[in-house]
Amino acid sequence: MSFHDSAVPAYLQTLHSLSNVLKKAEDHASAKKIEPAALLGARLFPDMLPLTRQVQLMCDFAAKGCARLTGSEVPSTPDTETSFGELQQRLARTIDAVKNYKPAQFEGADSREVTFPSGPGKTTTLSGQQFLSNFSLPNFYFHATTAYDILRHSGVELGKKDFMGLN
Amino acid sequence: MSFHDSAVPAYLQTLHSLSNVLKKAEDHASAKKIEPAALLGARLFPDMLPLTRQVQLMCDFAAKGCARLTGSEVPSTPDTETSFGELQQRLARTIDAVKNYKPAQFEGADSREVTFPSGPGKTTTLSGQQFLSNFSLPNFYFHATTAYDILRHSGVELGKKDFMGLN
Repeated sequence: MSFHDSAVPAYLQTLHSLSNVLKKAEDHASAKKIEPAALLGARLFPDMLPLTRQVQLMCDFAAKGCARLTGSEVPSTPDTETSFGELQQRLARTIDAVKNYKPAQFEGADSREVTFPSGPGKTTTLSGQQFLSNFSLPNFYFHATTAYDILRHSGVELGKKDFMGLN
Repeated sequence: MSFHDSAVPAYLQTLHSLSNVLKKAEDHASAKKIEPAALLGARLFPDMLPLTRQVQLMCDFAAKGCARLTGSEVPSTPDTETSFGELQQRLARTIDAVKNYKPAQFEGADSREVTFPSGPGKTTTLSGQQFLSNFSLPNFYFHATTAYDILRHSGVELGKKDFMGLN
């Protein structure tokens, strides 16, 4: 087994499924004459992040996760998306970037140390395995699920199969 | 690296953090004189599962995931919990069960085939790595995050640090 297989297929599955979830949300908005911004700015609670930020963050955790695990340059992506179309482009660019990593780049990455920012002026160092299992993937799924939950709560017809990429 | 390290620490971190999240929810209910059942039965949408079921499901995905990956007997756990205390016991039993698996039991599990029920009268067969990365962990995090999101939406004061087990 390559450590690549613990990371890349997981990110890709949920990036693809969220792209499909957002497509259904956009279609729903169009069919029900809902302003797209009403969904893009929807939140589960006033001090939680809105849909757009949840999607941007899941993209960041996937792209930066792969970069840090492979010792590649960590991409810095401005959060400028204001439409479903732009969020789809962000997801597509993230999918391309994640797909681009080769198994050889992950060689030994499970035990290599990864140092990453963990708060203002703070860094944390973990083994690659711990970084993936205890930091990057939980954060990635947290934002992906919350994006789904915001849309579900807003009345978009979705099921867990959409989240799992089975539709 | 042992394949154990891709699975067990991930499940444990989030099982522990959800136990802390539920403790905060119970304290919140008590301080605000909210009937516990109002939180335990809370949903993000009428046809979504309530908090109690989200917690039961995350426990199942963790316990059954480890059992299937190690070729152990798959536990069948009745979903009878009706209080915060009982959900804490369910989480504690799940944590004990997951902790009990030894690295040696995961030896070769990444490439071993896992066959599991995937719908009424249907089974799916995947490699252990695919089962973990593309089925068990995404489902586990989906229900854990949705439990958190239900409580957040219900006004319990929580932050992502609670979900990540950093508080």
